[in-house]
Amino acid sequence: MRMYDVIKKKRDGGELSMREINFFVENYTNGNIPDYQVASLLMAIYFNKMNKRETLDLTKAMINSGETVDLSNIKGIKVDKHSTGGVGDKTTIALGPMVAACGVPFVKMSGRGLGHTGGTLDKLESIKDFKVELSREEFVKNANDINIAICSQTANITPADKKLYSLRDVTATVENISLIAGSIMSKKLAIGSDAIVLDVKVGSGAFMKDLDHALLLAEEMVDIGTGFGRETVALVTNMDEPLGYAVGNSLEVKEAIDTLQGNGPKDFYELCLAIGSKLLVLAKKCSNEVEAREMLMKVVNSGKAYAKLLELVRYQYGDTNYIENPQLLPKANYVVEVKSDVYGYIKSMNAESIGKCALILGAGRETKESQIDLSAGIVLNKKVDDRVEKGDVLAYVHGNDMKKIEEVEKNIRSIIQIGEKNDENKKLVYGEVNKDGTKLL
Amino acid sequence: MRMYDVIKKKRDGGELSMREINFFVENYTNGNIPDYQVASLLMAIYFNKMNKRETLDLTKAMINSGETVDLSNIKGIKVDKHSTGGVGDKTTIALGPMVAACGVPFVKMSGRGLGHTGGTLDKLESIKDFKVELSREEFVKNANDINIAICSQTANITPADKKLYSLRDVTATVENISLIAGSIMSKKLAIGSDAIVLDVKVGSGAFMKDLDHALLLAEEMVDIGTGFGRETVALVTNMDEPLGYAVGNSLEVKEAIDTLQGNGPKDFYELCLAIGSKLLVLAKKCSNEVEAREMLMKVVNSGKAYAKLLELVRYQYGDTNYIENPQLLPKANYVVEVKSDVYGYIKSMNAESIGKCALILGAGRETKESQIDLSAGIVLNKKVDDRVEKGDVLAYVHGNDMKKIEEVEKNIRSIIQIGEKNDENKKLVYGEVNKDGTKLL
Repeated sequence: MRMYDVIKKKRDGGELSMREINFFVENYTNGNIPDYQVASLLMAIYFNKMNKRETLDLTKAMINSGETVDLSNIKGIKVDKHSTGGVGDKTTIALGPMVAACGVPFVKMSGRGLGHTGGTLDKLESIKDFKVELSREEFVKNANDINIAICSQTANITPADKKLYSLRDVTATVENISLIAGSIMSKKLAIGSDAIVLDVKVGSGAFMKDLDHALLLAEEMVDIGTGFGRETVALVTNMDEPLGYAVGNSLEVKEAIDTLQGNGPKDFYELCLAIGSKLLVLAKKCSNEVEAREMLMKVVNSGKAYAKLLELVRYQYGDTNYIENPQLLPKANYVVEVKSDVYGYIKSMNAESIGKCALILGAGRETKESQIDLSAGIVLNKKVDDRVEKGDVLAYVHGNDMKKIEEVEKNIRSIIQIGEKNDENKKLVYGEVNKDGTKLL
Repeated sequence: MRMYDVIKKKRDGGELSMREINFFVENYTNGNIPDYQVASLLMAIYFNKMNKRETLDLTKAMINSGETVDLSNIKGIKVDKHSTGGVGDKTTIALGPMVAACGVPFVKMSGRGLGHTGGTLDKLESIKDFKVELSREEFVKNANDINIAICSQTANITPADKKLYSLRDVTATVENISLIAGSIMSKKLAIGSDAIVLDVKVGSGAFMKDLDHALLLAEEMVDIGTGFGRETVALVTNMDEPLGYAVGNSLEVKEAIDTLQGNGPKDFYELCLAIGSKLLVLAKKCSNEVEAREMLMKVVNSGKAYAKLLELVRYQYGDTNYIENPQLLPKANYVVEVKSDVYGYIKSMNAESIGKCALILGAGRETKESQIDLSAGIVLNKKVDDRVEKGDVLAYVHGNDMKKIEEVEKNIRSIIQIGEKNDENKKLVYGEVNKDGTKLL
C-alpha cells in the first residue's frame, strides 16, 4: 500500500477501507509517513468528508495507537461526561458529586483548558493541594470507595490523535465533523466507562456556532459511541452566553460550591440536572428522567452532594477548608464594577468575547506553556433577558493588573448588548441525540 | 501574515492576493514554511482552483524565486518551443534546424525525460561527444553565429517550482491546471525568448487524456505567456499513437535526420511544419502561415535544414560522422520483428503503453537516477488506420536483453489493436489557442 494512493483515493471522492485507514494512522504515528502527506490527506478529507464507517474506523485506529484504560475493577455502571468546551463551564465540579452522591460511579479523565474555554483540572487546582495526577490504582480505589475520581489523562492515550490534532491545527483542517468527532471520541472511548453523556455546546462561545453543525457533531459522536457498544447520549446546549455567572478558575469553583449548597445560578443548576438525569438513567439507577431529577435535587437539598465534594477533595489530597470557606480560594487584588449607563434588557453577550476577556486577565492559556492566574476572571451580574436600570452593575472584573482590568472593562461594555426585550426566550437545551435518533426540544 | 490564514482562505474558496502568493512561494523556497502547510494549501488549490490572476502571480513568484536568463545579446526575434511530453516526440531535433535555416534564432533550454516520455537532451546525447551543457556565453554565441542552441537548464532556474513539483508529486496534487501551467510556463518564461509555441499533447500517451482538459491547459498557458508580454501560441496535437515511427533515443535521432533529408514520417513532418510556420510568423519572418510553410519545405528540400543540423552538432562539439552515417549511432544487439497473425486495419495503439515498452527496454528513466540505454526502443512499421495483412511486420523491437524483448513483443501484440477500419480519419492538430481565442481545427 502506498500513501500516495490513499491520498488520491480520498481526493477523488473514494471511501477509504479499514486497511487504508489503519495503514495511515499506524504509519503516521510511528513516523513512517511524513507530515506533508498526511496534511494533504486531511485537506482531501476536509473537502470530500468521511462516511460513518470510515469515521468509526478512524476512531478505532486512533484508540489502537496507544494505551487504553481498563476500569473493569470499578464496581457498577460507570458514567462519564464530556463537554465540547464553553465559557464558565464548571459542570463537572458540581455534577460529579451530585451523580456520585446518588450512588453512581462518576469517573473522568480531563484535559487542560486552551484558548477562551477553561479546563476542569485548572479549576480544581484552585483548591489548595488538590492533586489531579492520580495513579491508576488511586483512580480505581477512589471510584470504588466514594464513587468519584477526576484526574488528568495519562500520556499514552491516543498518541495518533495528538499528532493528527497538532497537524490539523496548523494546516486549517480542524473543521471537519468526522475528524472532530473521532478526536473527541477516541479519547473518551480509550477510557473504559460504560455510559457517556456528551454536552455539545452551540453558540457564540462554542466551537460549533450554529445548531445544524452542533447536531451533526452530536449525531456523529453518538454513532461512534454506539458503534463501540457504549451507551452514549448527547445534549446540544446553549453557549450563546457564559454558563452561570462566574468565568475564571477560583470564581467558578466558588459557584460550583454555591450550586451544591442549593444557591447556584438557575441555568447552571438546570444543566447539571439535565445531564445528571441522563447519567442516572443510563446507569440504571433510575427508570426514568423525572425520577432521576428528583433524586438529584434531593441529594443537593439534603447536603449529600456537597458532602460528596468534600469527600472528593479529601481523597485527592486537597484542603477542604477551601471548600468550607471559599473566601480562602485565590483572590484577585482588584474587583472593579462595570455599571450600565443605559436602561433596557440584556439582548446578548458574546460568550467567546467574554472568554477572551478572562484570557486577557490571565484566567486562561493562550498557548500550552502559558501560566494561569487562578484568581482572575469575570462575575456577571446580569444574564441575557434580564432587566437593567441605569447604574446597575453588569459585571465584576477580578484581576491583578489595573491596565488589563481597564481594557476588559471597556470590552465588556461593548460585549454586553442592551436594548429592547428579545422576542423569544432563550433556551438552555436545544436537543437530544441518542442511538434511536435526534429530538429537538 | 500567517501561512495558516493563507491555507484557510483558499480552503474557504477565497482568492489569494499577490502578497499572499509571494509570501508562501518565497518562504517555502527559503525553508521558512514547512512542507506540511504547503501540502494542505496545494490540496485546497486542487479543490478550489486558482483564477487567471492568481495563476499569473504564482508563475511570477516562481520565476522570481531564482535566476533568469537574459537573451538580449542574441540578435533578432528569438523563438522557443515546448511540448507537454509525448511518445516518439523528437520534434525539437528536426524543427530547430528547419527554423534556424530560415534565419530565425531557435533557442531552447531543455529537461531530461522521465517516465514513459523521452527527453530531447537524452536523444541528442546519442550523437557521440554532443555536449548539452553550454555556458551562457557559448549559448549566446551559437545562437548569434548559427541561429540555434539547445542546452540543459542551469540549476538556478525556478527553484520554487522544483520544490513545489516534488511536493505535488508525492501528495497527489499534480493534476491542477493552474499548477501545471504555472510550472511549465515559469521555466519557459525565466528564459528570455521573445515568442513561444506550445505543443500541448492530448491522448493516450499524453498527460492530458481528453481534448477539453488539453484546451484548458493550453488556454491557461497562453494567458500566462501573454500576461508576461510574450507572443505565445499553443497547438493541441494528437498523442493517441506515438509521433512518427521511432520510439527510443538513437532511433529517434535517425528519424529526425531522415525527416531533414525529406524522408520523414508524414505525421511527424506535418507537425514540424505546423509548429514551424507558427514560429516563423511570430518571428515576423513571414507574414502568413502559407508563406512560412513554403519556406520551411524549401529549406528541407534544398538540404539547408539538414546542413543546419550538422552545424548544430559541430557547434556543440558532436561528431558529425554520426549524422552523416546514422548506422554509427548506438545500435541494439537484437532487433526482433513483431508480426501480425490477423488482417484488418490498425484501430489504435495506446501511446503510453508503447512508451512503457520502450521504458522496459531501457530507453527511458523510471526514476531520476536511472541509466538509459540509448540504443533501445521500438520502430513501428504500421500506424493507426494502416491496412495490415497476416504476416505483416507491425513493429521492430530493438534491445539488448532477450527476456525484456520477449516481454515487450508480447505487450506490443496486445497494444496494437487490429480490426475494422475506423469510421473517422485521425487528426494531427485538434486546435490552436492564441491571445485572441481558441480555434478548433
